[in-house]
Amino acid sequence: MDGAKDEYAADISSIREAHERIQPFIHRTPVLASQTLDSMAGVRLAFKCECFQKGGAFKFRGACNAIFSLSDEQASKGVVTHSSGNHAAALSFAAQMRGIPAYIVVPNNAPKCKVENVIRYGGQVIWSEPTMQSRESTASKVLQDTGAVLVHPYNNPLVISGQGTVALELLDQAPQLDTIIVPISGGGLISGVALAGKAINPAIRVIAAEPKGADDAARSKAAGRIVTLPETNTIADGLRAFLGDLTWPVVRDLVDGFVTVEDGEIVEAMKLCYEILKVAVEPSGAIGLAAVLSDGFRNNPAWKDCEDVGIVISGGNVDLGVLWDALKS
Amino acid sequence: MDGAKDEYAADISSIREAHERIQPFIHRTPVLASQTLDSMAGVRLAFKCECFQKGGAFKFRGACNAIFSLSDEQASKGVVTHSSGNHAAALSFAAQMRGIPAYIVVPNNAPKCKVENVIRYGGQVIWSEPTMQSRESTASKVLQDTGAVLVHPYNNPLVISGQGTVALELLDQAPQLDTIIVPISGGGLISGVALAGKAINPAIRVIAAEPKGADDAARSKAAGRIVTLPETNTIADGLRAFLGDLTWPVVRDLVDGFVTVEDGEIVEAMKLCYEILKVAVEPSGAIGLAAVLSDGFRNNPAWKDCEDVGIVISGGNVDLGVLWDALKS
Repeated sequence: MDGAKDEYAADISSIREAHERIQPFIHRTPVLASQTLDSMAGVRLAFKCECFQKGGAFKFRGACNAIFSLSDEQASKGVVTHSSGNHAAALSFAAQMRGIPAYIVVPNNAPKCKVENVIRYGGQVIWSEPTMQSRESTASKVLQDTGAVLVHPYNNPLVISGQGTVALELLDQAPQLDTIIVPISGGGLISGVALAGKAINPAIRVIAAEPKGADDAARSKAAGRIVTLPETNTIADGLRAFLGDLTWPVVRDLVDGFVTVEDGEIVEAMKLCYEILKVAVEPSGAIGLAAVLSDGFRNNPAWKDCEDVGIVISGGNVDLGVLWDALKS
Repeated sequence: MDGAKDEYAADISSIREAHERIQPFIHRTPVLASQTLDSMAGVRLAFKCECFQKGGAFKFRGACNAIFSLSDEQASKGVVTHSSGNHAAALSFAAQMRGIPAYIVVPNNAPKCKVENVIRYGGQVIWSEPTMQSRESTASKVLQDTGAVLVHPYNNPLVISGQGTVALELLDQAPQLDTIIVPISGGGLISGVALAGKAINPAIRVIAAEPKGADDAARSKAAGRIVTLPETNTIADGLRAFLGDLTWPVVRDLVDGFVTVEDGEIVEAMKLCYEILKVAVEPSGAIGLAAVLSDGFRNNPAWKDCEDVGIVISGGNVDLGVLWDALKS
């Protein structure tokens, strides 16, 4: 990994620094196991439960790293972001801990529980239309008005380093892992996990799990360049973003493969998380389990010798009614 | 605690022995924290999540201790129990690990997911009527037919010692606790927790949480003798049993107080467990949180100096539909 920092937005040093910085504020989330799910998957599984992270998702790690890296002068004007939800809540929570304002541009179709989280943690909600254009232009206006610092949900070196701390902890808690499956959206989490994971164990496989209805990252990997989609269609509301210029090089070089799954498989995995693991998991968070149980994973000869598979459960912010509707249908 | 073993069915030595015996088989369950719930309760909370235990409840600890204490000759004939559910699944699972049969007498009104757990873990289901008389007579017949060993759900020294291992782990994970709140039904869990907890920290308070519709243990404590009820009426299907002659002396002498709560408070606590802690918790498992949030706890001057409160989340086996119906109503 020598010189990696030159190529990529983060490296093992910046990730370890992030861990030092955020450790007083984050939860070291537990790793859960289930013999029943091991039997279903045909491999041993270790679930890194970021649903138990503060704010209910891994996003708090990156947000915390970004916020506590600000100078006092920068911090005094606050932070701003546009986000599908978990990053917004995380940024609000971390800003509250530092005692600075967080301005959150939220699309007006965001899940109710995620908006409630923003408000719970003292974030100031500014509504936008659900298009990326409206979200970005609204955020720009807030930036101009307040002088706050923009903290992008994933295309930000400090955020990527913060998310990478998931892998530091996971490989300390479960050093036997030969594979880690990570949900992919904008690529912040998987970039951090791949950079940390491969620095600690160069042989480890990092596999991206992506919804079929928002498979821009898998298409990007296949095409060798960032591909976006005219629209996305998936229950996994946290996995609808596209790669950024800081996450794409890591995904291009260090992600060993993709598993894409149907929404029905995600819902089934949510149900298993609830009934077997006893954990409330949002659709985006359940996709890793959906992937390891899918034919796309099991029938791929490249992964037939996977034995110890880490699954990052990225978040648990799901309206109970939404879960119930999904399970009934 | 000198000579405690003479007075009570277990002591710190038998509980430590139990932990040695069962450690290879059980999960060391994590302790979760939530600033949001701390704010609501006005104290710091540490949730010992036995919903993540094998079989989905603390019951696996006692069952495992009983099964792996059997001689080979005893074990060869298998074990039998009548149970409201979680003990049955736990005994089946532990028996499966030892490779011996488990005969489970199940009342025909037991929750579906609990019966499914028994079957999943290889237990042989024998149905009875939901009265204690029918359950005991059916179990007696199985005992006669098979020569199996009866493992009572709570009135058994090995089971009490096994359940006490919850406190060994909790006070290792959260040594700052000044109070532990434990659900009470037959008294196996709270007996083990009180015996272990007070041996480790004589100043620690052990408080029982009980549904108002099945408050036999609170009435027993008040009366100074075991009180039973003609019927029980609570959503907490795991908390309908009455104290036994082995658990009563411990409850009488070592439990510092009771908090009784309404079913509505239990349902609200289940909802908070799901939405804030991100954990699937059955009604019996949520009662500790219900208790710490209740007026009965908060307004009791005896407990006004509680600062660090451990909550034992005893189990997570809840049908999702049942949870949803309860939350809607």
